[in-house]
Amino acid sequence: MAHPMTAPPYKQLEQEFRRAHAFRGVISLLRWDAAVMMPRGSSEVRGEQLAALETELHQLLTQPKITRLIDRAQANTQTLDEWQIANVREMRRLRDLAIATPASLVSRLAVATARAEAAWLKARAENSFAVFAPHLEEVLMLVRDKAVLLGQALSLSPYDALVSEFNPGVNSQDIDAAFKQLSRSLPGLIRDAIAQQETRPVLPISGKFPAAKQRALAVETMKALGFPFDIGRLDESEHPFCEGVPGDIRVTTRFVPGDVFYGLFAAIHETGHALYELGLPTPWLGQPVGRDRGMALHESQSLLLEMLIGRSRAFTQWLQPQLARHLGVSGPEWAADNIYAHLTRVRRSLIRVEADEVTYPMHVLLRYELEKRLVAGTLAVKDLPEAWNASVEQRLGAHPRNDIEGCLQDIHWAWGAFGYFPSYALGAMIASQLGEALREEVPDFEEQVARGEFGGIIGWLRGKVHVHGSRLSVQELMQEATGKPLSAGALLRHLEARYLEGALSSAAA
Amino acid sequence: MAHPMTAPPYKQLEQEFRRAHAFRGVISLLRWDAAVMMPRGSSEVRGEQLAALETELHQLLTQPKITRLIDRAQANTQTLDEWQIANVREMRRLRDLAIATPASLVSRLAVATARAEAAWLKARAENSFAVFAPHLEEVLMLVRDKAVLLGQALSLSPYDALVSEFNPGVNSQDIDAAFKQLSRSLPGLIRDAIAQQETRPVLPISGKFPAAKQRALAVETMKALGFPFDIGRLDESEHPFCEGVPGDIRVTTRFVPGDVFYGLFAAIHETGHALYELGLPTPWLGQPVGRDRGMALHESQSLLLEMLIGRSRAFTQWLQPQLARHLGVSGPEWAADNIYAHLTRVRRSLIRVEADEVTYPMHVLLRYELEKRLVAGTLAVKDLPEAWNASVEQRLGAHPRNDIEGCLQDIHWAWGAFGYFPSYALGAMIASQLGEALREEVPDFEEQVARGEFGGIIGWLRGKVHVHGSRLSVQELMQEATGKPLSAGALLRHLEARYLEGALSSAAA
Repeated sequence: MAHPMTAPPYKQLEQEFRRAHAFRGVISLLRWDAAVMMPRGSSEVRGEQLAALETELHQLLTQPKITRLIDRAQANTQTLDEWQIANVREMRRLRDLAIATPASLVSRLAVATARAEAAWLKARAENSFAVFAPHLEEVLMLVRDKAVLLGQALSLSPYDALVSEFNPGVNSQDIDAAFKQLSRSLPGLIRDAIAQQETRPVLPISGKFPAAKQRALAVETMKALGFPFDIGRLDESEHPFCEGVPGDIRVTTRFVPGDVFYGLFAAIHETGHALYELGLPTPWLGQPVGRDRGMALHESQSLLLEMLIGRSRAFTQWLQPQLARHLGVSGPEWAADNIYAHLTRVRRSLIRVEADEVTYPMHVLLRYELEKRLVAGTLAVKDLPEAWNASVEQRLGAHPRNDIEGCLQDIHWAWGAFGYFPSYALGAMIASQLGEALREEVPDFEEQVARGEFGGIIGWLRGKVHVHGSRLSVQELMQEATGKPLSAGALLRHLEARYLEGALSSAAA
Repeated sequence: MAHPMTAPPYKQLEQEFRRAHAFRGVISLLRWDAAVMMPRGSSEVRGEQLAALETELHQLLTQPKITRLIDRAQANTQTLDEWQIANVREMRRLRDLAIATPASLVSRLAVATARAEAAWLKARAENSFAVFAPHLEEVLMLVRDKAVLLGQALSLSPYDALVSEFNPGVNSQDIDAAFKQLSRSLPGLIRDAIAQQETRPVLPISGKFPAAKQRALAVETMKALGFPFDIGRLDESEHPFCEGVPGDIRVTTRFVPGDVFYGLFAAIHETGHALYELGLPTPWLGQPVGRDRGMALHESQSLLLEMLIGRSRAFTQWLQPQLARHLGVSGPEWAADNIYAHLTRVRRSLIRVEADEVTYPMHVLLRYELEKRLVAGTLAVKDLPEAWNASVEQRLGAHPRNDIEGCLQDIHWAWGAFGYFPSYALGAMIASQLGEALREEVPDFEEQVARGEFGGIIGWLRGKVHVHGSRLSVQELMQEATGKPLSAGALLRHLEARYLEGALSSAAA
């Protein structure tokens, strides 16, 4: 064993952060277990275990020794290479975030969000926003405290500080610019796409398919995408997710007997997350610079597989015979063209997680605007339902019949995750922009997809995105990978090409 | 939140040990996951996670603060009640064990035992003790260092120090006395039982039963025994075990298609371990005094269910219709009497884990003698196979054909678990002695078992054993529960009554 007190500051830091990485991996596994395996009655025990680990992690990052070592390492960067310098930068970021949120605030937030989650479930069961409101008030108050503290530490506005926790280097000015572009173009696009689709009826797809058959189909699809089952698992949980660490990655989905596409596309989505984790730079595993570059980039990797590839004509050509083989289906409704029409149907839906890719950004935009106002204090919690419904009306031309279809549909705010929602739309923008560059550099992209060959595409993503870990900012990475700054342009071009394809002459969909 | 620096020493200690408890629970869950769920290729990641948690736990126990607080708490016991005093005593024991084994030795042992386990698997695959020998040498050398250090800290001989890690308060003098008694009586008992059974042939029981049916039978049996599936699980693993903590307890078994009793009785055995954990004193959960009182007592709880109850005539009366219902079996070989004869067959077997309860202690005795000599250095590793085979010949009158059937059959020594084996025979002694007291205090014991009512029995065990946690020593507990000091007498009486039943007039079997 090395003697940590005599090792250079940088080496000591690596050792401390390797411990932090181990704890993070354990926390992730405990979350997976809680959702997939844990007996119903064991949540209190699990809560104590998670709290002990989170506290340990917080203590590790906030010990004075870490600050001293970072200061010394940053004063002596001439001995460090580019990656090591980026690694220390990321260490400082994590340390700053931890220092800015005192343990007492973290633990009060943990209590308040646990209560808010229970109240949210109850409010949904009783269709009563009033049940949820006081708990959301409490969470919001603590989140505001946190936002102010984080903002002071990071020299950011309170809301931007919250955003930066999920997406370092992204601020609301960038988001505003991109969302303005979406906001201008999407309403027309939605209207035209729906009008056009009305002229081409889709044959209804129905049937009940047992979970075992759906699972076999999902496993085969994940294998084709390159998911390594020797260091990963697919299980079922209420809400699909991806947990674990590179080396032990755990994807979940949910198989709905009457909707074979739900479980399959959730598995594809989560496989995108998993492949990002697995593609992170191996020599830097366990170090901050070896981690993912935030939630927007993470979401881009899942959306690229689920939406850009998974809902392409080429993919349905490959998928059609797999469906026939695994589920024994046949007939005109299971023809590739009809599957494609089914998977790209645009609707003015009320529920974000069921929305198609054209209306989806609108769901994100309205949440972004509302949560900025909630954090700023210019919208009171009691006025949220009314503001929500007005916004849905304006953005989507749809009317929630109740708050379950309205402002009670997402759990994020109950969890205190303000500043998270923009990641979803930013992820779609990044996915499309990467997709454009990918098409240019892999010209037979669609032929590969139609043949079920995804190695070239995943390899491209690995080299352009995954392997950078946290070395580059999202903006730097996009510039390097696509030659352009991040914008909403590619997403709009993609949506127009796919959803107004009849209207365009030769766009690839 | 309390302010730990101003709380009394005892309260501060409780807080520190509650954290230790959370870490122990997490370690246990990670072990369960590694054996049941983890992808094959993820063992390196898991190793790093476990090492990080073990190191954390070691650091927690060895920090100077803990010693200071224990000293202060023990200097002021007038403010503490009996349980709290016992709790501090157990804290000191854990602290002494941790201090005596420096982190460097712990980590060298971790490396050496990991290598030895791999070498043990290879040696078994190649039937070559020579492959294992150098690794066992290395482990043994480190274990000797540990034994000396522990012995100095605890004022015990090196071997007794190893025993005390698994069974605090038990020393080789006690073990020698009990094992001498077994050693004197068992050879005759084995001979007579086999001779007697030869006159009563057993109808062979065969058939292939799918895991799903065997699982349903095991679950029903565990439910009857009181296993709470709302805070526990049953899964499958290569080697059956029980992990987890009270509040989230995880039992495993293995279903062998051609041997329905293997998986069922392994599940019953592990349920005994689980019920002990679940019966530990609730107000002391998370504190050292709330933990089990060592491996011998733990094993007694599993053997009491698996052997004393599970292989009784009364139990087979209850079991017979369950087998018929779950497996659809019928015919004379599935009659209760024949099942009983099958479950109580005595054989001069070579493999410990397959041995019946009459020959089983002999397997333990020979390992105990050999490991004492290995630790003392009076038996060289290279001479182990010869010494083993001679001992098996003498103790059991059987001849291993190779080392796989001989000294390569158990993994314990590869793991560095010297001083563990006595727990198995002590557990059988404790189980029988508790069984005698139970029979006296629950006179319709057998009628209850025959009806599948186990609540009274488990309730008795809970009140007499489980609920004491680590407050009493094993000897004190046995005196309180049975009115007698622990000895081999009850085990011998039980074996005579059950296995020489024809020769005795009115013994309960």
